[in-house]
Amino acid sequence: MRPSQRQPDQLREVEIIRHYTKHAEGSVLVKFGDTHVLCTASVDEKVPPFLRGKGQGWVTAEYGMLPRSTGSRMDREAAKGKQSGRTQEIQRLIGRSLRAIIDLEKLGERTIHIDCDVIQADGGTRTASITGAFVALQDAVTLLMENGLLSESPLKDAVAAISVGVYQGEAVLDLDYLEDSECDTDMNVVMTGSGGFVEIQGTAEGVPFEREQMDHMLDLAALGICELIAKQQEALGA
Amino acid sequence: MRPSQRQPDQLREVEIIRHYTKHAEGSVLVKFGDTHVLCTASVDEKVPPFLRGKGQGWVTAEYGMLPRSTGSRMDREAAKGKQSGRTQEIQRLIGRSLRAIIDLEKLGERTIHIDCDVIQADGGTRTASITGAFVALQDAVTLLMENGLLSESPLKDAVAAISVGVYQGEAVLDLDYLEDSECDTDMNVVMTGSGGFVEIQGTAEGVPFEREQMDHMLDLAALGICELIAKQQEALGA
Amino acid sequence: MRPSQRQPDQLREVEIIRHYTKHAEGSVLVKFGDTHVLCTASVDEKVPPFLRGKGQGWVTAEYGMLPRSTGSRMDREAAKGKQSGRTQEIQRLIGRSLRAIIDLEKLGERTIHIDCDVIQADGGTRTASITGAFVALQDAVTLLMENGLLSESPLKDAVAAISVGVYQGEAVLDLDYLEDSECDTDMNVVMTGSGGFVEIQGTAEGVPFEREQMDHMLDLAALGICELIAKQQEALGA
Amino acid sequence: MRPSQRQPDQLREVEIIRHYTKHAEGSVLVKFGDTHVLCTASVDEKVPPFLRGKGQGWVTAEYGMLPRSTGSRMDREAAKGKQSGRTQEIQRLIGRSLRAIIDLEKLGERTIHIDCDVIQADGGTRTASITGAFVALQDAVTLLMENGLLSESPLKDAVAAISVGVYQGEAVLDLDYLEDSECDTDMNVVMTGSGGFVEIQGTAEGVPFEREQMDHMLDLAALGICELIAKQQEALGA
Amino acid sequence: MRPSQRQPDQLREVEIIRHYTKHAEGSVLVKFGDTHVLCTASVDEKVPPFLRGKGQGWVTAEYGMLPRSTGSRMDREAAKGKQSGRTQEIQRLIGRSLRAIIDLEKLGERTIHIDCDVIQADGGTRTASITGAFVALQDAVTLLMENGLLSESPLKDAVAAISVGVYQGEAVLDLDYLEDSECDTDMNVVMTGSGGFVEIQGTAEGVPFEREQMDHMLDLAALGICELIAKQQEALGA
Amino acid sequence: MRPSQRQPDQLREVEIIRHYTKHAEGSVLVKFGDTHVLCTASVDEKVPPFLRGKGQGWVTAEYGMLPRSTGSRMDREAAKGKQSGRTQEIQRLIGRSLRAIIDLEKLGERTIHIDCDVIQADGGTRTASITGAFVALQDAVTLLMENGLLSESPLKDAVAAISVGVYQGEAVLDLDYLEDSECDTDMNVVMTGSGGFVEIQGTAEGVPFEREQMDHMLDLAALGICELIAKQQEALGA
Repeated sequence: MRPSQRQPDQLREVEIIRHYTKHAEGSVLVKFGDTHVLCTASVDEKVPPFLRGKGQGWVTAEYGMLPRSTGSRMDREAAKGKQSGRTQEIQRLIGRSLRAIIDLEKLGERTIHIDCDVIQADGGTRTASITGAFVALQDAVTLLMENGLLSESPLKDAVAAISVGVYQGEAVLDLDYLEDSECDTDMNVVMTGSGGFVEIQGTAEGVPFEREQMDHMLDLAALGICELIAKQQEALGA
Repeated sequence: MRPSQRQPDQLREVEIIRHYTKHAEGSVLVKFGDTHVLCTASVDEKVPPFLRGKGQGWVTAEYGMLPRSTGSRMDREAAKGKQSGRTQEIQRLIGRSLRAIIDLEKLGERTIHIDCDVIQADGGTRTASITGAFVALQDAVTLLMENGLLSESPLKDAVAAISVGVYQGEAVLDLDYLEDSECDTDMNVVMTGSGGFVEIQGTAEGVPFEREQMDHMLDLAALGICELIAKQQEALGA
Repeated sequence: MRPSQRQPDQLREVEIIRHYTKHAEGSVLVKFGDTHVLCTASVDEKVPPFLRGKGQGWVTAEYGMLPRSTGSRMDREAAKGKQSGRTQEIQRLIGRSLRAIIDLEKLGERTIHIDCDVIQADGGTRTASITGAFVALQDAVTLLMENGLLSESPLKDAVAAISVGVYQGEAVLDLDYLEDSECDTDMNVVMTGSGGFVEIQGTAEGVPFEREQMDHMLDLAALGICELIAKQQEALGA
Repeated sequence: MRPSQRQPDQLREVEIIRHYTKHAEGSVLVKFGDTHVLCTASVDEKVPPFLRGKGQGWVTAEYGMLPRSTGSRMDREAAKGKQSGRTQEIQRLIGRSLRAIIDLEKLGERTIHIDCDVIQADGGTRTASITGAFVALQDAVTLLMENGLLSESPLKDAVAAISVGVYQGEAVLDLDYLEDSECDTDMNVVMTGSGGFVEIQGTAEGVPFEREQMDHMLDLAALGICELIAKQQEALGA
Repeated sequence: MRPSQRQPDQLREVEIIRHYTKHAEGSVLVKFGDTHVLCTASVDEKVPPFLRGKGQGWVTAEYGMLPRSTGSRMDREAAKGKQSGRTQEIQRLIGRSLRAIIDLEKLGERTIHIDCDVIQADGGTRTASITGAFVALQDAVTLLMENGLLSESPLKDAVAAISVGVYQGEAVLDLDYLEDSECDTDMNVVMTGSGGFVEIQGTAEGVPFEREQMDHMLDLAALGICELIAKQQEALGA
Repeated sequence: MRPSQRQPDQLREVEIIRHYTKHAEGSVLVKFGDTHVLCTASVDEKVPPFLRGKGQGWVTAEYGMLPRSTGSRMDREAAKGKQSGRTQEIQRLIGRSLRAIIDLEKLGERTIHIDCDVIQADGGTRTASITGAFVALQDAVTLLMENGLLSESPLKDAVAAISVGVYQGEAVLDLDYLEDSECDTDMNVVMTGSGGFVEIQGTAEGVPFEREQMDHMLDLAALGICELIAKQQEALGA
C-alpha cells in the first residue's frame, strides 16, 4: 500500500487553471495534488544571439522554487547569487521537452520564455512544470495567431510528463514527496500526445533496477501521460 | 480624475487570504487590487552569527518578483546572479518595518524569515508586502505560542504600509502602476496600529514637492493605514 | 544636551574644497565635521544603452567607503565581490537627488558619473555626498560650457541634503556618528535651493515617531539646507 | 552505415591507463577512441558538513573540459566565473553513479573526490568519465586498504556507462561526436557489473522515439557495458 | 631629456603625511609627485584560519584606485564584482614586501591589514603604496607597544620601493605616467633599509632589455630607495 | 647538495611533445621533470573589442591547474567561481612574454589564445608553460602560413623561461617543488632566443638577497634559457 493510499497506477488529483495571472501571454497554475506550479509563457519578439538571422525562433525555460514552497525553508537562489545544479538540470529539461513539439521555423524569429515557479511543493515539480508549461505555451501560440503574428500553429503535438518509481518492489505512478523519499528508483518520463518518448531520466536511489521493473515503469508512465494529455485538452477546451 | 476612477482617498480593493500555502508557519496572499503578493513567515530556531548568545531573536525579510509578474518579462535575479538595488532596498524596508513592532528579546533566540514574492504586480508591491507580512508574522507567532515555544507574544503593535502621491496637483492614496508612472511624487508610509510613523520614503519623480503637499499626503496615508489595520484585524479574526 | 555640544539647530563645521584632485571634470572634498567625502564628476560622451538615441543625457552616482574610513575596518566591497544593500541604497539616492535638478535633455547625449568616496566617516556620509556632489556637478557643467560643448546650463536649481533626528525627545540637526547611534529617529532630507523637497527618508530606529516630531524635524532640515546651499554658493564663488 | 564505419554494436577502441599522474590516490586516463579523460580519485579524511558525525563517508565528482579539448575553443569556466548547466548535470551524474556501487558506511568518515577532466573530446565524455572514474575509485580504495585505513572494501559492484542512439533509424552503440550531432536520439546508460541499471537518460533530439527503439537501445547498452566492465577488470589486473 | 624635466636619477617630490585620517592605527598619505595614495594600517586581534593556533601573526594588504583617480574614469571594482588581475598582483606584492621585514612570531596572534587606496594617480602607485604602507605599519606597531600589547618591535628593517625604466635608451628613476607610457622597460624594485632586495619585477614593454641596462637600473633603484628610506625616517621623526 | 641531486646549473629533464591533442592549431605537452603542462594555441579570426579596427592582432593566455595536479587536492577554480590572484598573475605573465616576441601588426586582425593547463605539478609550472607555449604558438603560426592566411611569420624571436633560486646560500637553476619550498629566493626569468630579458620576477621568500646573488642567478638563468631554446628548436625540427 502506498503512503498516499493511491492505487499503483493512480495519479494525484490534477487541476489546470488557465489565465491565472494577467500579464503573461500564457499563464497556468497547475496542481498535481499538493504540488502547485505557476507556468507562464512570455513572447519576446527577438531571438538569442546564436540564432540571429537564421529564420527560426526559440523556446527556453527557467525554473524556480519560492523559498518556503518546501517543508523547511530553502535559501533564495537570487540571494545566494547562483542557481543550483538541480535548478539548472530541471530548467534545461523543461526547455528541451517543449522544443520537441514545436516547429521553431514556423514560430518565426521570436522567443517564448517559459517560467515555472513552484508555489507549493510536494514532489513531482518538474513533471507538473512540463505539463502546465505546455498549456501556457499553447495559449501564447493561440494569442499570436489571434493577433495575426502567426498564420499557422508551430505546435506539432502536445507534451506532458510524469514520474514513476519502484516503491517496496512495485512500480507506482506519480510519486508525492513522501513516496519519493522512500522509493528505490525515480524515473521521469516525458511523452508526446501521440505516444512518443521525448525524455527519460531514471535514477536508482538505492539498489539498481532491473529491466523488467523498467518495462513496468514505462507502461505505467504511458498510462499516466495519456490521462494528463486528456486533462490538458479539457482545460484548453479542445 | 484618477485613471483608476477612484476617489483621492480611496484604497484599491484589499484582500488578505491566510493559510495560502501549507508548509509555512505563516502564509498570506495579500491583494491590493491587481497587485498580488505571497507573504510567508518561516521560523528558524537559530539566530544569525552577529546575534549569537545575545539572548534575542531576529526578523529579516527577502523580496522577489516572479519574472512575468510585470507587463513585460523581467530577467530572473537568480539567473542573473544578483539582486537589484531596488530589490535590496525593498527587502531592507520590509525587515525594518516588522522589527519596529516586535520585541526581539521576547522572541527568544530564533529567526523569523519573511519572504514576500510578487505573483502579479500593479504598483504598490512594497506596501502590500509589509501589510501582508504582518499577518503572516502574527500567524507564526501565534503558532509558536500554541506550541508552547513562547509564553507571551513579542508583538507590540500592528504595522501596515501604503503609498501616496501627487497626481495632477492633487494628493492621492494607493497608487496603481499607471498612476505611479504618471505622478510627480511617490511616497511610501509605514505606520503602526497606534498611529506612529515607522518609515517615510518620499521621492519627487518630476518636480520637487512643497511642504503643504507633504502634509496633505501624510494625512491621506494615515487614513489609508487605519483601513489596512482594520482589514488585517478582520482577517485575523480579532 | 547633544553629545557634540552643538545646539539642536547647529550644523557641524562644513568645508567645501574644489579642485581636490586633478583629473576629474569636477572634484570636491566636502567635510561635515569629521566626515570627509571626495566627490568627483566625470563626463563621458555617451549614454547608457537604455537612453541611446533619445536625445537626452544621464547623471548617475556610485558610492563607496574606504575600508578604514570607519572606527573598525570594514571588508572591501571589491574584494567581497559585491556592493552591500546599504551602498546601493545610498548611490541610488545620490543619483535621484542630482537628476532632480538637471534638465537631461539640455545636457545632451552624455553621461556625468558622480563618484562619492568616503575618506573618513563620522555619520552623515550620504548627506555630505549629495551636498558635495552638487558642487562637483556644477564644476563639470561649467567646464562643458567653457569648452563650448554646452551653450546653456542644464542645471535648474541647487540641491543639498542634511540629516535630522530625535535625540532624547528633541529634534536635532546633522547627526554625527555618536548621536546617530543613540537617537530614536533618523531622517535624511534632500531639498533644492528654492526650498522644494526632493527626497525624504525617515526611519524610526527605536520607537515610532509622531506627526509633531516629524513637523519639527522638517523645519530644522529646511534651516540646515538653507545654510548648506549658501556654503555651496560661497565655494562656487557665486 | 555509421560515419565511423563501425558496426551498430561496436564500441570505439577503449584504453584504460592507470597511475597516469603521480599525486592522486587513483589516477586513470581513459580513452574511448579520440575522447580522452583524466579521472583522479583524491581521498580527504573528512566529510562535508551535512554528513558530520553520521558515521558515513561521501563520494562526489567534478567535471571539466580543457578549453581546447573541443573542435573550437570554449570559454574557460574558471574565467567566466561559473560552471555551465551542462557541466553541473554531468558531474552530478558521475557522483550519483559512483555512490550507487559503494557502501558509504563502510567507507568511514572520509570523502573521495573524483575529478574528470577532458583532455580531448570526441563525444561520450560523460560515459568515458564514469567508466574511468570507477577504476580510479577502485585504486584509491585499494590504497586505503593497503594503508590499513580500511579493513574491508566498501565497493559493492563495478559500474560503467555507455551511450546509445538512433542513427538513420537504427540503434547504434557508443556515439562519437559526428554521430551524436546527426542522430535522432541520444541515451546514456549507467549499469553495474551485475547488470542492474543505475541511470538512464534518454533525449529525443529530433523526432520522439518509440518504445521498440528504446528496447533495442537498452539491449545494445547492456552489451556495451559488459565489454567495458571486462576492460576495467583487465586494467585492474583482476 | 625626460618629459618631466628631471635628471635620470631624480625622484619626484616625495611627501609623507602621517595621521591623515583619525580611525586607523596607522594612516599615511604618501605623495610621489602627483601620485597620492592613502595607506592605512588596521590592527585586528585575530589571524586568518590557516594560521590559527600557530603562535604567529599576519600582515596582508589590499589595493584599490578611486574610479576617477586616473585620466579617464575606470569602472569601480566593487560594482563590477571583482578585482582585476592587476589589482590582485599589486596587493600581493605589497603584502609580500611588508612581510619581508616583520617578524610574524613577535607580532603575536594578530593581523595587520594594510589598505592602499589611490586618491590620484600619475604612475608609480605600487611603489608609493609600499613606501607609505611601511610608515603606516610602523605607526601601528608603535601604538601596539604604547598600549602594552607588544613589548618588543617585530619590525626587523625598513622597506621602500621605486620604479626604474629605460627611456630613450637611458635608465631613469621613478617614472611618472607619461614616462611610463613611453618607456621600453619598467622595473619595480623593493629594497630594505639595509640594502637587500625584497622584490624585483621587470618587464620589457617594447624591446627586450640587456644585462647592462639591467645593471644600470638596479644601481639607480638603490640610490632612490636610499632617499626614500631617509624620507620615511624623517617623517617618523627618527 | 640539492635535494634533487642535480648540479647547481643543471636543468631537469626537459621533454617537448608536439601535436599532443588533435583539435588545437598548436598543442604541446611540455615536461620539466615531473612538471607536465599541456599548452595549446587556438586561432580565433577576430580581436577583442579594444583592438577592433586597429589593424593588429592579439595574443592572450589563460592558465589553470587540474585539481589533483598537486600533492593535496586544490579546489577547482570553476567551482569556486573565481580565479585566484596567483592564477591571474601567471596568465598575465605568459601573455606578456609571448607578446614580446610577436609582431602583432603582422599577425593581422586575429587572436591567438594560449591555454596552459597543468596536468601534474612539481614546481616551475609557469616557466614550463611559457617554454611550451612558444612551441604551440610557433605551430599555430606555421599552420596559418601553410593555409595562406599569413604570408610572413610575425614571430620575431623565440622565448623561454626558467626559475633560479638561492638554496643554502648557493644559486641553483630550475627549482623543483621541494627545492622551491626550502629556498630563500625564487626568481623567474623570461628571455628571448637572442638573449634579451623579457621579464624578471624575483622574490625574497625568507631573507633579502644581495646584488651579488642576483648577478649569479642571472648568469645561471641565461645558461638555462640557452638550453631550453635549443630544446624548442630541436622539437620544432629547426
